Parts: sequence; structure tokens; C-alpha cells
Amino acid sequence: MSELRQDPVIGRWVVIAPERGARPQEFEPEPEEDIRADVCPMCEGNERMTLPEVFAIRDSTEPDRPGWYVRVVPNKFPALRVEGELEAVETGLFPHMNGIGAHEIVIETSEHTMDLAFAPDEQIIRVLTAFRRRVEDLRRDTRFRHFVVFRNHRRAAGATLSHPHSQIIALPIIPKLLLDQLAGSSRYFSQNGRCIFCDIVQRELDEEVRIVQATDHFVAAALYASPYAYGVNIYPRRHSHDFVTMTVEEQVDLASLLRRLLMAYRSAAFNPPYNLVFQMAPSIPPACEVPQGCANMEEHYHWHIQVAPRLSSVAGLEWGTSFYINPVAPEEAAADLRKGLPSA
Amino acid sequence: MSELRQDPVIGRWVVIAPERGARPQEFEPEPEEDIRADVCPMCEGNERMTLPEVFAIRDSTEPDRPGWYVRVVPNKFPALRVEGELEAVETGLFPHMNGIGAHEIVIETSEHTMDLAFAPDEQIIRVLTAFRRRVEDLRRDTRFRHFVVFRNHRRAAGATLSHPHSQIIALPIIPKLLLDQLAGSSRYFSQNGRCIFCDIVQRELDEEVRIVQATDHFVAAALYASPYAYGVNIYPRRHSHDFVTMTVEEQVDLASLLRRLLMAYRSAAFNPPYNLVFQMAPSIPPACEVPQGCANMEEHYHWHIQVAPRLSSVAGLEWGTSFYINPVAPEEAAADLRKGLPSA
Repeated sequence: MSELRQDPVIGRWVVIAPERGARPQEFEPEPEEDIRADVCPMCEGNERMTLPEVFAIRDSTEPDRPGWYVRVVPNKFPALRVEGELEAVETGLFPHMNGIGAHEIVIETSEHTMDLAFAPDEQIIRVLTAFRRRVEDLRRDTRFRHFVVFRNHRRAAGATLSHPHSQIIALPIIPKLLLDQLAGSSRYFSQNGRCIFCDIVQRELDEEVRIVQATDHFVAAALYASPYAYGVNIYPRRHSHDFVTMTVEEQVDLASLLRRLLMAYRSAAFNPPYNLVFQMAPSIPPACEVPQGCANMEEHYHWHIQVAPRLSSVAGLEWGTSFYINPVAPEEAAADLRKGLPSA
Repeated sequence: MSELRQDPVIGRWVVIAPERGARPQEFEPEPEEDIRADVCPMCEGNERMTLPEVFAIRDSTEPDRPGWYVRVVPNKFPALRVEGELEAVETGLFPHMNGIGAHEIVIETSEHTMDLAFAPDEQIIRVLTAFRRRVEDLRRDTRFRHFVVFRNHRRAAGATLSHPHSQIIALPIIPKLLLDQLAGSSRYFSQNGRCIFCDIVQRELDEEVRIVQATDHFVAAALYASPYAYGVNIYPRRHSHDFVTMTVEEQVDLASLLRRLLMAYRSAAFNPPYNLVFQMAPSIPPACEVPQGCANMEEHYHWHIQVAPRLSSVAGLEWGTSFYINPVAPEEAAADLRKGLPSA
């Protein structure tokens, strides 16, 4: 059973998950995985190799059979397990709780070698629908306070299987970076009466230099203070704290933007390893965890997608201080990406 | 000229340093460097290949000539430049300031292939002396508010040259992780009237399971909520916010502990890539930056050394949330390291 532990000094929660690891020798870097399609558990025809699906968009009516476009299954080796009662947090100097959570895999296509940058928009729309539907369903479980939807592309970004997939993790705690974001957006709102992300979007549109693409419903801009090279955030123009509020029109618009942005990365930076992370407000306001309080998260938080290429290395300075050296000016990154962006 | 920028939402400073990079193609992973000793700028006899030394422990009296044990030189490709006036922080939504700082290289030995784990204790004592003397000297420059002393071991931990060396960076800002630590230690002190690190050391000694080694003056313990596998902190038993207060006796004790701990890592985890980071209080109390205030840092902060092996990978979940999956229980890590620890 894994365990959640909180750092006594900075308040960061981590999950200690020994069943996923790993003696030290198993940490040796592995070559880029190149599993054959006939043994890939995510390929069409191999549905028996996964746990039973919890969601699918499919033609056939039979679950766990071929004939699907997108399929969501529980992770066989989850970081957090869904079974069990959530224990109260053990407080004091060394806070901890049991590792309850959910960990699901969104298989984005039945095609082993498809790349999202080359996928038809309808397929990306289906993937976004799967994200929304699964988060909506998982939210009914009141043990979970926060949801993380993310994608690891290539081994250097943490992908262990090459078949295109994303992951959804449900957490019983609020992760540190989100607490920091909520503290910042809450403070800004109380001082200015406006959402800080709305103001950032407006400022980016005014300054133009960091804009990669502005569509009818979304703005993709290189991060002003990106800790890594070529970091981009995609913000919805319409203020909302929660990505499940996306309309059909917005989803269609986002699918096209996402595909073209990934193509721009391929063209500007040679198919870099990257992480995509959907950032949304937690489901239950963490009233006591944020110094400024978390009332009105609907007003002061603004969901967005973080695109984090893994190009620059992280050394002792960054790891030990959270002070990052970014070797590419965000304005240069935006210019490079604009050049590589297909028009449609 | 590099520029410091602050994230408008979470307050994290980063340095945008385009002169160090790098078009995208230059990010392609390089093989482990294996430069020949005759062209290594850190080797004895090649002193002309570095900038003039700012400190050395040497037999000969001539600077920048052979005959030295430890040599400190400015980095030829610094993340932050020492020249110039520090501009006031430009506040508002997108805060920034010019990238003033110092970036020095501590060449730990004249021997190209020496590993700190096999070095004589006297040599490690000299390295610690160089750290102290350089930080003491840099502190006279009132533009700098914080100092980071760190070591990257092997390419995967950020080392670009294999000759044993550490780095010292002087910053005009307080990095995010330290602000978080100060907020935590300040809050704990105001609630309990005690240093949280002192209490952690006592609790670790009581519980025993995470202790790797306790010496006369230091306690090395696996981190209770380590975000990565085999994370260890080395705490001085004597409360002090600042590592330059180390006595000669403490320095001798630390040198032996450090050497044996690095040997234990080699034996438990096959010479893993790692970062060593010296964590100390900032030089100027950041009065306004920490919610709880930073009065009495001398009382509530406690310097320590963070040992961060780079075994487990960082994927989208960790990168996007600061929620880490650690696949090795800290108690197991401590047991493994104890087994590998030489007695002397």
C-alpha cells in the first residue's frame, strides 16, 4: 500500500509507492521503448491485456472488444489505489495518510504509431471528451479533491510505452504547485478584483511578442517567466476555473490549436519530449490550506493547459532551489513556434 | 545580458539566459563527456584555459600556475553576470530585473579522474574551506541576497565536464524553494518556539529507521517525505542558520561523513548521478517576501546539505503539479545506505 507524506517544512505532499519500484539497479536508463504492436496492451485486438475499460468511444456495443476510437482503463500499476477508506491526515511533524486515489490511462487511438500532431481533429476532440467525461465521473467520489490530466511524450518526458496515451490521476490532497497558484490568484483577485490569468491573457495579446497563436476561443502564449525552454500555456479566452465547462465549439477550436501547436514543436525543435498538463481548480475548496483562503476559486482561478518541452536539463541549482535557468528567451521561442505553425 | 523574471502567479524567479543557449538542435542529448586531460580546463597545467582564479589553496605562491589543491575561478559562461548596477525590480504583472549575480567554479582537485567518494578527507576539508571562504567574500557585495553552493555528479545530474567540481551562485533574489522553507520554519517557530529542523533531527534520532549515520556533529537521515528515491539530508546537530559558522572540528567530521555517504551511494545504487546542495539562510532577511515574515531567521532556519540522487524520472505529473511519486520508501533507502556505509 502506498502512503502519502507531507514535507514538514514546505508542505509538499509526495506519494511513497514502493510497489511501483524498484531496486536501485532497475533505475538504469532504458532505451526508448519500441514494443511490437502484437504485444502492446494498448493496441486494438489486445483489449484482454488491460483491466476492464471504464469508458470508451466505440462503434461496437461490446466493451473490451475491438472497434473503439478512444478507451480509458485503470492503470495496472497505479501510483495510488482506488480501494479503501480515506484515513484522516495524521498531523504533527511528519503528516501522512494512506495512498487512496485513482490512476487511469486514456488510450488516445487504436493506432500504435499515431502521433497527436498528425491525428485528425475529430480524434483529438474524442480524447478531450474522454478527459471531461472521466473527470466528471471521478468527481462523484468525494474522497478525491483534485484531478490531474497529463500526457508524457517520449521516454525523456516520462513515457514508458510509446502507444499514444494520456493519464488521469485523482488525488485526495491538493498538490503544492496548485496551492501556490491558488495563493497567487486569490491574492491578486483580492487586490485587483480581477482574475490574474484574464489579465495575463490581455497583456499577452497587447504585447504580442509571446503569442504563438490566438484563435476564437484560446490563446497560446510562451510563458513570460518560463522555467524551461519553449514553455507555452494555452488559456481559454472565456473565464472558467474548470475545463469540464468547455463548450463543443471551444473543444473543436482547442483540438485544432493543439494539433497545430504540436506540429510547430516538431518543426521548431525536432519532435521534443514534452509534457502536457491540464491545470484546473481543485474540486473541493481547500479552505485551510491556502494562506489567503480559497473562497471564490470560480472567480480567481482560470483553467489552462501547460505545454512543457523537456529540452533543457535540470541540475543541482534548479533541483535544490526551484531557481531555473532558461536558455531560450520566451519571445524567441514564440517566434520559432509561430514560424513552424501550420495554418490549418 | 540575461534577465531575471518572476512568475506572476506563484512568485518563482527564473533567469532567462539566452547567451548560454542554444538553438533547439543543440538540446539533443550529448554522450557522457570524456574530455582528455590535456584539453581539460580544470586540470593542473591548463590554468591559462580558465579565467584568473579568485581563490586557491596552493603550495606555490604564484596564482594561476600549477601547484594547487583547490582552485576557484569565475565561470566563463555564467548564468548571471557580476558586472553592473542592480536595477530595482520592475513590479506589476510581469516583474523583472537585470541578471546580476556571480557564478564561480570550485575545482575540487587537480586530478581529472578523482571521485569525491575516494578522496582523502584532507582534500574534502579543503573543498569545504573554499566554499566557506568564497561565500564569506561574496557576501561583502551587498547586491547579492542569497548563495547557492552545489555539485552536479554525472551528466544525468547536469554535469557538463567530468573533472570534479562544484559551483557557487550568488543571487540578487531569494529562490522559491527557500522562501517556502522560510515560511514553514518561521510558522513552526512562532507556533512552537523551536526550530523545526532541530525537532526533525531529534525525531529522526528517536525513530532511528531513517538514520543513515549519526556522527558527533552531524546527522544524515533519509528525507521523511523525499520526492525522489534515496533522498538524504545532512543536518548539523548544532543549531545554526549559516554554514560558514562551521567549526574546524565540525568540518573534519563532515568531510568524513560526506565521503562515506558518497561511497554508500556507490555501493547501494551503482554510482548514481546526484546533486549536492548546501541550503542556508539568505544573507538579507527578505522582510516582505515571506507571508509570515523573516525576522529571526537565525533562530528558525537551520542550514543543511541536500543529497539528491537522480534515479527516478520526472514526468508530467511531477512537472505540472510538484506532486512526486517516490518508488523507494525512505526507510528502505536508509537501510540500503547503512549497509553500504564504510566504517571509516
